[in-house]
Amino acid sequence: MQEIEQLCATARECYARGWAPATSGNFSVRWGSRIAITPTGLDKGVLVPQDLLEIDMNGSVLGGRGRPSAETSLHTVIYRERAHARAILHVHTIWNTLLSARFDPRGYIIIEGYELLKGLSGVTTHEHIEKIPIIENSQKYEVLAIEFEEVLRAYPDAHGVLLSRHGLYTWGESVAEARRHLEALEFLFEAEGRRLFGQP
Amino acid sequence: MQEIEQLCATARECYARGWAPATSGNFSVRWGSRIAITPTGLDKGVLVPQDLLEIDMNGSVLGGRGRPSAETSLHTVIYRERAHARAILHVHTIWNTLLSARFDPRGYIIIEGYELLKGLSGVTTHEHIEKIPIIENSQKYEVLAIEFEEVLRAYPDAHGVLLSRHGLYTWGESVAEARRHLEALEFLFEAEGRRLFGQP
Amino acid sequence: MQEIEQLCATARECYARGWAPATSGNFSVRWGSRIAITPTGLDKGVLVPQDLLEIDMNGSVLGGRGRPSAETSLHTVIYRERAHARAILHVHTIWNTLLSARFDPRGYIIIEGYELLKGLSGVTTHEHIEKIPIIENSQKYEVLAIEFEEVLRAYPDAHGVLLSRHGLYTWGESVAEARRHLEALEFLFEAEGRRLFGQP
Amino acid sequence: MQEIEQLCATARECYARGWAPATSGNFSVRWGSRIAITPTGLDKGVLVPQDLLEIDMNGSVLGGRGRPSAETSLHTVIYRERAHARAILHVHTIWNTLLSARFDPRGYIIIEGYELLKGLSGVTTHEHIEKIPIIENSQKYEVLAIEFEEVLRAYPDAHGVLLSRHGLYTWGESVAEARRHLEALEFLFEAEGRRLFGQP
Repeated sequence: MQEIEQLCATARECYARGWAPATSGNFSVRWGSRIAITPTGLDKGVLVPQDLLEIDMNGSVLGGRGRPSAETSLHTVIYRERAHARAILHVHTIWNTLLSARFDPRGYIIIEGYELLKGLSGVTTHEHIEKIPIIENSQKYEVLAIEFEEVLRAYPDAHGVLLSRHGLYTWGESVAEARRHLEALEFLFEAEGRRLFGQP
Repeated sequence: MQEIEQLCATARECYARGWAPATSGNFSVRWGSRIAITPTGLDKGVLVPQDLLEIDMNGSVLGGRGRPSAETSLHTVIYRERAHARAILHVHTIWNTLLSARFDPRGYIIIEGYELLKGLSGVTTHEHIEKIPIIENSQKYEVLAIEFEEVLRAYPDAHGVLLSRHGLYTWGESVAEARRHLEALEFLFEAEGRRLFGQP
Repeated sequence: MQEIEQLCATARECYARGWAPATSGNFSVRWGSRIAITPTGLDKGVLVPQDLLEIDMNGSVLGGRGRPSAETSLHTVIYRERAHARAILHVHTIWNTLLSARFDPRGYIIIEGYELLKGLSGVTTHEHIEKIPIIENSQKYEVLAIEFEEVLRAYPDAHGVLLSRHGLYTWGESVAEARRHLEALEFLFEAEGRRLFGQP
Repeated sequence: MQEIEQLCATARECYARGWAPATSGNFSVRWGSRIAITPTGLDKGVLVPQDLLEIDMNGSVLGGRGRPSAETSLHTVIYRERAHARAILHVHTIWNTLLSARFDPRGYIIIEGYELLKGLSGVTTHEHIEKIPIIENSQKYEVLAIEFEEVLRAYPDAHGVLLSRHGLYTWGESVAEARRHLEALEFLFEAEGRRLFGQP
């Protein structure tokens, strides 16, 4: 499937940018009620379609090698709560790590006034206010999955969710759209990070 | 046409540098009264000549696939006001975003004293003072086109125009010259940004 | 041997990232009591298996071209003190240089609260506290070797050792694991560096 | 000649790193009293041996296409004053630009305490103190050439010369050594720049 090849190419590119270091990050694509997803612990710099697991919407493994990542349940929650989502990208970057740590106490980050907000689907003006929820990090993924469900409902217009000092989840109606959201959000995080913390 | 291939190569390179993320940026080349220009919404990382639209100096489509970008009118204004311009590059970068935001209230940015100013056509000394106008961002492109015309006339020596928290427009007598202007200006923006905001 | 090819690929990648500039850095892999290690003074950007020296656990040369690096004794100490280590990576980066200089007086750096700590073997939660010893730099390698032995014993859980204003040593049960540790630690050093020094 | 191919490869790599933007920078290699040098205005990203000019030690053109750069005289001065020099690299980088601007009033920059100082020929310890002269930038190259001669004599141990807000000149007994010096100095400039200006 072409989308699976695109997902792997996107993962390899994220690795090359330093956005998925040390086997971190995970990536998935959905068609109908089937999901192809990266298993735990793989080097994303060399990801190929054969590496992916096939799972259903409950996270049960239907085929493929490897062990599901603990974060698989966050993917299935997103697919359930965002009915149009066909691809999900989760990355660890310096700037999303630092911004999520800074705004963790408040629970969300606001980005406004940038032209690049128009890289987010449905946004037609730089005057858009993007409010991205931040969830405190945890290793209890059943709890995280519930919190994800809550923030996805509380922030119906958000194009991403941040896990504090952990990383970003974003999605799209295709791999290409998810990747556009990722590039837009990470650009905005870096611009906002440098602006807020004096560089400039 | 070789210039079209060079324009596409330049766009792909801009993407690779992070200067045209999330399908942002647009690029054009002119010969006579015909313009080849990127349509809206394309991933610049894989741009090829067949992707370009052909338009006339009024922005009317003469051929090619895709929908013209809303910013097409800014290209035609530049070609009218800068008679020698044969190529226009528009990019979104972290440093031009941050500098334009900072100096937006004043309406221009001044760069002086750097050897790399000599990368701008007609500049023969680092003692040159480059004054680049900044226009407040807007989604009303007919208004922006008028403001562009005004600043291009008010700043006849400027090698670029900044849209606040949006991006840079620069141009040249060839794709190679436009690219040289882009590389020079972005280097100067980064140097000046780090100097002004304490890094250093 | 596949591990030797992987070691060279890792060294070339470190060079490409700017982590082994100016022929700096050194890299080794061990099988049984034999070690393949980079000789002194090679450009790591073009490293191939034929460039490596073969030495024993005392650092005596068994084969290969070139002169052993002065830092060879630090590799053999690590292999003795970390019985499971099969590969060692030593790099010079901007962020490990700056952090080691800053925390040199205290003798260690603490990193905690980041999800990417889970990139370190045996770490299962972001609540892990990683304490990495810092040794003052010296050109007396026989003394450094003794200090290395001491800190490896004093910090039995540490995944790396920093030499102040010099670089990081990290290791793993395979080249892949050592590389995962390297990528995780350098990500954490950059995040922590930017957080501590106001950027943010 | 292999050295000429290596020089061009080094120039292309400098461009790729952003160290020779906008056709800036120049590069040369010497054998006996003949020098192969980049002419003015070439894009260094695609430099090939056929692009080079051949000149003598007085800067007179012996062969090749293109016009000599105004900075050619600085190369011949370095070859005269540093008898062992066989290659010269001149680059424009963000960090050498910012550091040279900062220390311009004092006339030199001091770098000490870093292991990477050992990347400079003849340096065997991090306790080395490298003192690099800074010359105020000028477009009067006959004057600059005299000032270059003076500082090369006044700082016989320096491995480079900075032109303020302009760039670095460094050299070596081979292209490989000159490149090692360049990589070491630029690493040190970045580390020192971040340390001095709070990042950290």
